[in-house]
Amino acid sequence: METFFSFLEKRVDDCSSLLCVGLDPHPSDLPEPTAAAVLAACLKIIKASASYAAAFKINAAFFEVHGAEGWIVLKEVIAAIQHQSDRLGSMIPVILDAKRGDIASTAEAYAQSAFKSLGAHAITLSPYLGRDSIDPFLAYKEKGVFLLCKTSNPGASDLQDLHVGPATAPAGNGRVDETEYLYEHVARLANQWNTANNIGLVVGATQPGALMRVRSIAPDLWFLVPGVGTQGGDLETALRAGLRKDDKGMLINVSRGIARAADPGKASAQMRDEILNIQYQLKH
Amino acid sequence: METFFSFLEKRVDDCSSLLCVGLDPHPSDLPEPTAAAVLAACLKIIKASASYAAAFKINAAFFEVHGAEGWIVLKEVIAAIQHQSDRLGSMIPVILDAKRGDIASTAEAYAQSAFKSLGAHAITLSPYLGRDSIDPFLAYKEKGVFLLCKTSNPGASDLQDLHVGPATAPAGNGRVDETEYLYEHVARLANQWNTANNIGLVVGATQPGALMRVRSIAPDLWFLVPGVGTQGGDLETALRAGLRKDDKGMLINVSRGIARAADPGKASAQMRDEILNIQYQLKH
Repeated sequence: METFFSFLEKRVDDCSSLLCVGLDPHPSDLPEPTAAAVLAACLKIIKASASYAAAFKINAAFFEVHGAEGWIVLKEVIAAIQHQSDRLGSMIPVILDAKRGDIASTAEAYAQSAFKSLGAHAITLSPYLGRDSIDPFLAYKEKGVFLLCKTSNPGASDLQDLHVGPATAPAGNGRVDETEYLYEHVARLANQWNTANNIGLVVGATQPGALMRVRSIAPDLWFLVPGVGTQGGDLETALRAGLRKDDKGMLINVSRGIARAADPGKASAQMRDEILNIQYQLKH
Repeated sequence: METFFSFLEKRVDDCSSLLCVGLDPHPSDLPEPTAAAVLAACLKIIKASASYAAAFKINAAFFEVHGAEGWIVLKEVIAAIQHQSDRLGSMIPVILDAKRGDIASTAEAYAQSAFKSLGAHAITLSPYLGRDSIDPFLAYKEKGVFLLCKTSNPGASDLQDLHVGPATAPAGNGRVDETEYLYEHVARLANQWNTANNIGLVVGATQPGALMRVRSIAPDLWFLVPGVGTQGGDLETALRAGLRKDDKGMLINVSRGIARAADPGKASAQMRDEILNIQYQLKH
């Protein structure tokens, strides 16, 4: 059966790219803080970068902040990506970066919003509410979810780097050195839950050690990797730490590095090639 | 200085109520799954229950699922609550139950959306990304946040009930029995971070033991408490476990119990009175 990740792998092969183009139209990057300016900025990036994009990641916040108009623009942006997919004859997956997470009856509405109303192919989700907050999304068999695992921000350490033990500590031998980090536990859960090839993880590039640990726990999962470039993550170090054995398994998200480039098309092509070069070097 | 929680306490005193009326217009509860039906359902509940409501909690998902129209209706619902506040001469706080959580630059956009574009007075947030994902919301000095701590759903145990130790285990003495649950750690962080009276916690009524533990960690914080009624939490047990020494500190959320009542006004009044009776009994 076709799943989000089988679609994604097809696209990755079609364009020889692990580049995920992030659409983060921050008000301060726009000529004016309006929904129309958001649309114009996104359309420009989409047109220029589509040929090199394994996927697009849309940051919901920068649309939501414009209210109803932002919501209309969000649908238009997704339609524009669809248009590029048709033009290229190769489906470019759309990841809605919304980081939702709520109890089951509410999660159903968020899933319907992302997958049916908007037509996104995957969504980012917080794992804090546990399995039943994820299930309503997994019910859409051809869609995908990326669970937040280890994020690229400084505050990530507040919770994600805590040592965790089992829910019920085994009597007498529950030493902390037998435990793991919370983000590793999330990776382990995601790996267990991924019985239908529809779960990936968000793992930031800013901490390559974490990328390596998560990869060893989840050898086959796809990682959505923010944090290269502006946030300080080094591309080669990240790829070395996180690529799967088949040389895939990572979507390297770049937002500002493309949006702020004088020529977003050229910046996307360069980024795609830079990733390819590193993949080649790592193999040989 | 006026803060969200000082506004809330004023309202609690004005209406002698700890009842939070939840607006969760689930498509299956509506005559038709449209934004117009959402608006009609919410207006009916708001008008009937405003006199007895310490606050209203709006579930963003059930508006978002209707796209741009849902967003327009969300603003109209908040305006309707404002109208009731004006009518009653007592400000009824609006909590946007959105459970957002993202890195700082994105969190700024979510905060602007909730507090400036929509005009909500408080928002629910996931703690998974840590302190810097909360700060952009706290920058709005008169607004409040409720951090997810212990939720009312079964899956809550997947992460929230894990035993956690310090980020760096002290050499040689890091036994699990010296650790605490993840949700307790979140409560402890919230208590530390609450230097400006603008942080509360979401603690479900379904596990009174957890309510008691969180209360002992955070003796002064306000709890937003879902899970009474439909989800199985017992009101008296919850109040006994979670009330502060001043007999306040809990907002008891009721959604379906009011929305599905033949007379939502009467159901709200009864719920307000039931809480009052239990408060009285616990004191005497």
